[in-house]
Amino acid sequence: MGYQYWSYETLNKLCNDAFEKFGFSKEEAGIITDVLLMSDLYGIESHGMQRLVRYYKCIEKGMIKVDAQPEILFETPVSAVIDGHDGMGQVIGHKAMEMAIQKAKTTGIGVVTVRNSNHYGIAGYYAKMACKEGLMGISCTNTNAIMVPTYGRTAMLGTNPIALAMPAEPYDFFFDAATTVVTRGKLEVYNKLQKPLKDGWAVDKNGHPSNDAADVLGNISAKRGGGIMPLGGSTEELGGHKGYGYAMLCEIFSSILSLGTTSDKTGTGGRGLICHGFMAIDPKIFGDAEAIKAHLSAYLKDLRESPKADGQERIYTHGEKEVEAVARMMKDGIPVNDNTMVEVLDLCNYLKMDFASYFGDYQPPVETSFKGNFY
Amino acid sequence: MGYQYWSYETLNKLCNDAFEKFGFSKEEAGIITDVLLMSDLYGIESHGMQRLVRYYKCIEKGMIKVDAQPEILFETPVSAVIDGHDGMGQVIGHKAMEMAIQKAKTTGIGVVTVRNSNHYGIAGYYAKMACKEGLMGISCTNTNAIMVPTYGRTAMLGTNPIALAMPAEPYDFFFDAATTVVTRGKLEVYNKLQKPLKDGWAVDKNGHPSNDAADVLGNISAKRGGGIMPLGGSTEELGGHKGYGYAMLCEIFSSILSLGTTSDKTGTGGRGLICHGFMAIDPKIFGDAEAIKAHLSAYLKDLRESPKADGQERIYTHGEKEVEAVARMMKDGIPVNDNTMVEVLDLCNYLKMDFASYFGDYQPPVETSFKGNFY
Repeated sequence: MGYQYWSYETLNKLCNDAFEKFGFSKEEAGIITDVLLMSDLYGIESHGMQRLVRYYKCIEKGMIKVDAQPEILFETPVSAVIDGHDGMGQVIGHKAMEMAIQKAKTTGIGVVTVRNSNHYGIAGYYAKMACKEGLMGISCTNTNAIMVPTYGRTAMLGTNPIALAMPAEPYDFFFDAATTVVTRGKLEVYNKLQKPLKDGWAVDKNGHPSNDAADVLGNISAKRGGGIMPLGGSTEELGGHKGYGYAMLCEIFSSILSLGTTSDKTGTGGRGLICHGFMAIDPKIFGDAEAIKAHLSAYLKDLRESPKADGQERIYTHGEKEVEAVARMMKDGIPVNDNTMVEVLDLCNYLKMDFASYFGDYQPPVETSFKGNFY
Repeated sequence: MGYQYWSYETLNKLCNDAFEKFGFSKEEAGIITDVLLMSDLYGIESHGMQRLVRYYKCIEKGMIKVDAQPEILFETPVSAVIDGHDGMGQVIGHKAMEMAIQKAKTTGIGVVTVRNSNHYGIAGYYAKMACKEGLMGISCTNTNAIMVPTYGRTAMLGTNPIALAMPAEPYDFFFDAATTVVTRGKLEVYNKLQKPLKDGWAVDKNGHPSNDAADVLGNISAKRGGGIMPLGGSTEELGGHKGYGYAMLCEIFSSILSLGTTSDKTGTGGRGLICHGFMAIDPKIFGDAEAIKAHLSAYLKDLRESPKADGQERIYTHGEKEVEAVARMMKDGIPVNDNTMVEVLDLCNYLKMDFASYFGDYQPPVETSFKGNFY
């Protein structure tokens, strides 16, 4: 199983065309594509092109409603609650973060919580929206249940990522991480690559350690039990209760404050029922925003330049790898694995789009080992 | 090395008397004692009575200034920046969280960041202050550097705990955790008990795994290198970069936004230079606060009642163990280990307080193996 490298322009055109074909407006298709490809450009393969099929299948099933309009249910100068009415997560998320940003520019802080949405891509995209406006941005989302709470055997929480971005030089601080030890997307990639899962990542339906990606993903989809461990692992000794706690923080800002659906009850009745949380903070409310940015930049530099462990050449600060990945991929192309290309061909056939007009002579493999379940 | 059990009233009187003897007002002594003993009552031995000697030594050295008055440097309706002027962390923290609470009651949200403070006890105390007022409370603090960033060999971040409390029935949600895999306090307790550290907790000055608490603590105090690992461990495979990222979130809300001292530069020039962050959010800004509380309570109940892993009898939700610990300790007494009692005797001698008037016939051991460094 290999990788094909495609230019940003090729994939950008494909995605925009596909989402417009699905019925989204030009602007909406642009937002959805932007979220999707930022993930690939940042080197987060799990949430980029390989997720396209998931959106396609969810739109096809009616779980994602193309013409849904997000509704503001409650609002104050510093806050809002939005009902996504089962629309596309990226469109809803973009609107919600724009509200949080506008509130932050007016009052200093904006917090917006969302219910009845769908998967919104990488949490970091929305944090970065605020960062581009000179603000601190925070975003989180619950997901279909996949995390088993400490001492449990049933997934009750999502991967529940939390992202924070804040302006800094020469790279913005950009932290975006699932509160599980790994993401579902990474399990999907390992499944596509037929690689065994690393020890400590997942448990089977009986709560025993498992390295079998297909089995773990299958059990989760069928709600047979098992799942991914919280950051810190399966016991309190290495802090599993802490990963479980951070997942709860995410749940509070997404499903609890919005009176939405907690991760354990999402994806039922043919609906996604995903919830998100967004926060924007203007550093000006703490005085001199430029001085704060310089202070953060200096600290990040000190971290990068601090002594390295034996055998290590670099200490990274959060956001640095992403900047380097963007530069590399804009130059060399974005890698998409062959199994994902099979899905792209299916999508083109479904939407009556000319696959060859994007990818020329390339033919994806006819046989694919992938038997995943995307919902 | 054994434990003595003392009533809450005995320890409460001792601490109040001691802090008043140091020159704090009755109200300030009450706040400091309250923070200290909440830790013991919650079963967090590391941050309770065993930390008393640290405060004593820091006051004696002049690192903590008893008569310092916190100064508000900058303020908006939703935010404030406070300079602690090297006062007692608990007094400064209490004032800062009270400001955040007042702002949240007025505008819906209050964020207060503090510089030039000292160690403030458990982060959760301040989160709980907001929770008692029906609000969500968040608090974090940087500390002397003890966490080695992923792929580094020098401590550049603190234990950097983040706490969040939110009203729920029958127990409030209460999460309070260092972003390291364990706290410095736990290393101090293991040192006092002469127990080897667990694998995966710490590295020596060369960046190699270590189980020697005294050596690790000594290296950190002398800034020779080494330290505690972030939550997730020393590599990215089990998410060490995530623990490092959460530590950065803490650093941003404490030392960065306050233009204060980052963990790597604290404790220099005879000053503590610790920074804190506080946030209070009124759930009313998202609609029906009672419905939100009921929604959180129902989810916590579902988590506790979900299927258990083989061999496990309970799934805990955050805050439950603390409620049970308080009930147990108010009934059976608060355990204080003999080495800590040696320190209490020293303190009584220093302050010319009658040890026997609190502890009767009990005599702490004359010989103690403890050779720690508290600064």
